[in-house]
Amino acid sequence: MTELLVPETRVLAVASHVVYGHVGNTMAEFVMQSLGCEVAALNTVHFSNHTGYRQFKGTRATAQEITELYQGLCQSNLTDFDVMLSGYAPSAAAVEAVGAIGIDLQKKAENKPGSFFWVLDPVMGDQGRLYVNDDVVPAYKKTIHHADLILPNQFEAEVLSGVKITSLSTLAEAITAIHRIYSVPHVIITSVQILKLSQSGSTPSPPENYLTVIGSTTRSDGSPRLFRIDVPALDCFFSGTGDMFAALTVARLREAVDAASPDLRNTASWVSPDDVEPSNLPLAQATIKVLSSMHSILERTMEARDAELAAASSLDGGLTAEEQEKQEYLRRTKAAEVRLVRNARFLRDPLVQFAVQEWRKEDMPTHLQ
Amino acid sequence: MTELLVPETRVLAVASHVVYGHVGNTMAEFVMQSLGCEVAALNTVHFSNHTGYRQFKGTRATAQEITELYQGLCQSNLTDFDVMLSGYAPSAAAVEAVGAIGIDLQKKAENKPGSFFWVLDPVMGDQGRLYVNDDVVPAYKKTIHHADLILPNQFEAEVLSGVKITSLSTLAEAITAIHRIYSVPHVIITSVQILKLSQSGSTPSPPENYLTVIGSTTRSDGSPRLFRIDVPALDCFFSGTGDMFAALTVARLREAVDAASPDLRNTASWVSPDDVEPSNLPLAQATIKVLSSMHSILERTMEARDAELAAASSLDGGLTAEEQEKQEYLRRTKAAEVRLVRNARFLRDPLVQFAVQEWRKEDMPTHLQ
Repeated sequence: MTELLVPETRVLAVASHVVYGHVGNTMAEFVMQSLGCEVAALNTVHFSNHTGYRQFKGTRATAQEITELYQGLCQSNLTDFDVMLSGYAPSAAAVEAVGAIGIDLQKKAENKPGSFFWVLDPVMGDQGRLYVNDDVVPAYKKTIHHADLILPNQFEAEVLSGVKITSLSTLAEAITAIHRIYSVPHVIITSVQILKLSQSGSTPSPPENYLTVIGSTTRSDGSPRLFRIDVPALDCFFSGTGDMFAALTVARLREAVDAASPDLRNTASWVSPDDVEPSNLPLAQATIKVLSSMHSILERTMEARDAELAAASSLDGGLTAEEQEKQEYLRRTKAAEVRLVRNARFLRDPLVQFAVQEWRKEDMPTHLQ
Repeated sequence: MTELLVPETRVLAVASHVVYGHVGNTMAEFVMQSLGCEVAALNTVHFSNHTGYRQFKGTRATAQEITELYQGLCQSNLTDFDVMLSGYAPSAAAVEAVGAIGIDLQKKAENKPGSFFWVLDPVMGDQGRLYVNDDVVPAYKKTIHHADLILPNQFEAEVLSGVKITSLSTLAEAITAIHRIYSVPHVIITSVQILKLSQSGSTPSPPENYLTVIGSTTRSDGSPRLFRIDVPALDCFFSGTGDMFAALTVARLREAVDAASPDLRNTASWVSPDDVEPSNLPLAQATIKVLSSMHSILERTMEARDAELAAASSLDGGLTAEEQEKQEYLRRTKAAEVRLVRNARFLRDPLVQFAVQEWRKEDMPTHLQ
């Protein structure tokens, strides 16, 4: 029986939990489990549903509660994690508590290079605005120094790098700055809307309605090794896609590192030798599979959403216009929940093959070449 | 591609959550998801690990927090559940809060018979003793009246029925009493240690080291239709097996009901017509697959446990005898965590085929024949 599982991997996943739908750990846990990872989910909030509904109920874990759950693991020797994936935390103190967990796990692993790897999704905002308190930003900036891979979106990359991304060359500058400022060896900037950027250099424009994902693993001199993958954008917004990306990346990176060479798994931060070309990086090879799985699942989600919305609405008569609008909004939001479980085969078996391109030197700003 | 998924089923799962290992919802959620069920997990406790470690950290949800999470679902129209699976709740008030959720979902479904089904695992104790507060028992007794299927173990069946189970005939009496007292149409008593019971009548004894699972769906006159499945017992205790049983039962019962007849799905409480023999009941057919999956996974868990324990222990020298004993206990408990994720194929594809037997009339006490 072909099982299509990645090598055995124990993951500590620290993020939010919702009862209904799939975001945060409620997305990441099943995604990684489907690929064969043993996932310990430490939930930072307990909400009824994601905040895109514009209403929810539930509670947030305090920094102390997060710390105590981890102490509970420590006291019973339950900290044999290969990877930590940390996502949304509900306050600056919570970000610091999660950071302390990562740092402690790193310390426990310091005599075995490569035995622990920390993927950090710096959840701070999107589309030009923060959706966390201002004090969360410095908390992340302190923490990221310890991470092995970070997964900011375009806005978060701007916040972290201090570089306003308006073109391909400023994008390269932002990644270079992130490598340098935070000594973080791997970066992926998810969903850059490259069409909106003013084009520079000779980089071929992707076809219309494509999203671009840019990643890099540093060389030993700290310089970036940039790769780029263009994927067709779907005309819809789905909550939890960042969490799906992160979870798939954990599993596929682990797989690609194991496949790359017997030594890489035992190399600090899984940084490939300098002679590995950008498009052959395990990070690039992993990202291809990640985006393929996501594309298949989101395509099917969009079809299911359209079918659900086409079905007759069961709205009561006699509602005010305002109430009717609210009910319709809730219905549309629910219909857009990612159809994860029934499409799990696409997690295990990515079908589409997107092309990865090295981001060539001549496309970079002169001072980075 | 053969996907081996059960018909689409939306489940509200109300039980405990642990960061590490697999018990409560941390078992049930992945089990049901693996079979294609869309699971909304409402967590009643947030612990670092299961209590079998004899130490843990974390928090319990209050009855009010449980109620509010459900209200969060209600206000956004996120209550389209086909099944509720309710398990451990940390207090009598919490049991009542969970009960109120089940009753509300039943009320929402009252115009569509069979559109909502409630599986209740009355988690109260085991091996002759309660591990919940005394006031939890009357809270369950009130709630069970509303459930469609309950899954007590032998001890819980005694508590609920008031019948001390010392023989096969008292076992039949207990099930009959549960049907009658609580009007609950389906019952499975999980893991009866039948060898310890004094045998009565002509029932063939199962081979040594077998566990017996007994179930029943009432006829229209309230009489039981008893079936029995003997499975080889594994010489090991694993936490979370009750939750695995419950979760698999949800998925497989739904599948068996759909397979049985087009009408059954739209019949209140999915009770088969009187002419369906005990061993042909969807409940019996479902239980065969449930026990097969469990047997394969627990067999592999035992192998993995033995391999893990055979590996050198990394105990520090210089520990006191007491501390050494504690560390060894923790190590053994961790090694016995169910190996769920890497064996998910056995959830989807049960291999072993156990035999179901009708429990014949002549095996029952005279007044039940």
